[in-house]
Amino acid sequence: MATDRGMLIVVSAPAGCGKGTILAEILKDDNFCYSVSATTRNPRPGEVDGVNYHFMTVDEFKNLADNDGMLEYAQFCDNYYGTPRKFVEEKLSEGKDVILEIEVQGAMIVKKNFPEALLVFILPPSIEELRRRLHKRGTETEEVIEKRVSKASVEIEMAENYDYTFINGELETAIDDLKAIIRAERCTLKRQKNTIKEVLNNA
Amino acid sequence: MATDRGMLIVVSAPAGCGKGTILAEILKDDNFCYSVSATTRNPRPGEVDGVNYHFMTVDEFKNLADNDGMLEYAQFCDNYYGTPRKFVEEKLSEGKDVILEIEVQGAMIVKKNFPEALLVFILPPSIEELRRRLHKRGTETEEVIEKRVSKASVEIEMAENYDYTFINGELETAIDDLKAIIRAERCTLKRQKNTIKEVLNNA
Repeated sequence: MATDRGMLIVVSAPAGCGKGTILAEILKDDNFCYSVSATTRNPRPGEVDGVNYHFMTVDEFKNLADNDGMLEYAQFCDNYYGTPRKFVEEKLSEGKDVILEIEVQGAMIVKKNFPEALLVFILPPSIEELRRRLHKRGTETEEVIEKRVSKASVEIEMAENYDYTFINGELETAIDDLKAIIRAERCTLKRQKNTIKEVLNNA
Repeated sequence: MATDRGMLIVVSAPAGCGKGTILAEILKDDNFCYSVSATTRNPRPGEVDGVNYHFMTVDEFKNLADNDGMLEYAQFCDNYYGTPRKFVEEKLSEGKDVILEIEVQGAMIVKKNFPEALLVFILPPSIEELRRRLHKRGTETEEVIEKRVSKASVEIEMAENYDYTFINGELETAIDDLKAIIRAERCTLKRQKNTIKEVLNNA
């Protein structure tokens, strides 16, 4: 039996929803790969090229995008951000599941180009709780927090376009939800058509 | 918040796929209820009314069916078999998930009448392995085994109409698959629309 192609798993969540912590837990399993985004913004102190981002010049980025080298990309505040296609395609061919941690706009583009992608949106328990968490983090001004909160509301409305969504209230529960979603997705009929054929042919 | 309505979970599998063992494990969780089928056939030694089946006369059965009291029913070998509606509706209203262990024909009727039902089909690793298991059980003649095997092939072809399917090769893996499917199904967008609204309204 040939290696089954891996799944493309898109995970989005408003800032402050604990997405990074949940994904870190999922990525402990070697069967998953994390797709590192490309960006034209400057590295911040401590950021490592190829780990946090693939840092590129605007020319490099545009050249790659123009040659269909990005699964999706977008511009935020004068900087480009995108998902290099090559890494994702290679890992999927190897049968690895690839996780894209991207914004809702990018997720919608991926969904259009890869209808077989699995789209997951992580929710905060409430907008109020999200605001409390951002305050607790204490890294942003009141103004920035309110900007993030109103951005979160717009993003959460987009959750209706995803395949699955769950609340990150208790971290362990949220991790188990995401694990179950990925496991169950492998059992959906659209991914099991070959299995049915194999069972029937092996008489 | 009102109690969310439970999920209707339909599980089908050819004889010899270990469906009963898997469901017994799932039913250890009090949040699940098992829907006991009704039948007009005579009880076999050891069978208990209300546990193995609700045993009914043909008149009782037909009267219930004619008054929309069966979610689905069918006739096999001169006997009627069906799913009494009242129990299922009551438990769903209480927020319990109800498991129907029924044949493919019944499952298709339930799917038509309850589009929100979750349909799961359990596969044997192969037709060959199914035959080996039936032989090992040693309760049927060669002729009956071959009848079951050819019925299984027809049933497995119907699996394409289910939402999820997985192979029962290793029992523990199969149990985890079914648990993941039920957990993930709760996170699907069609079941989470209210959650998204609640998160947004709690600002």
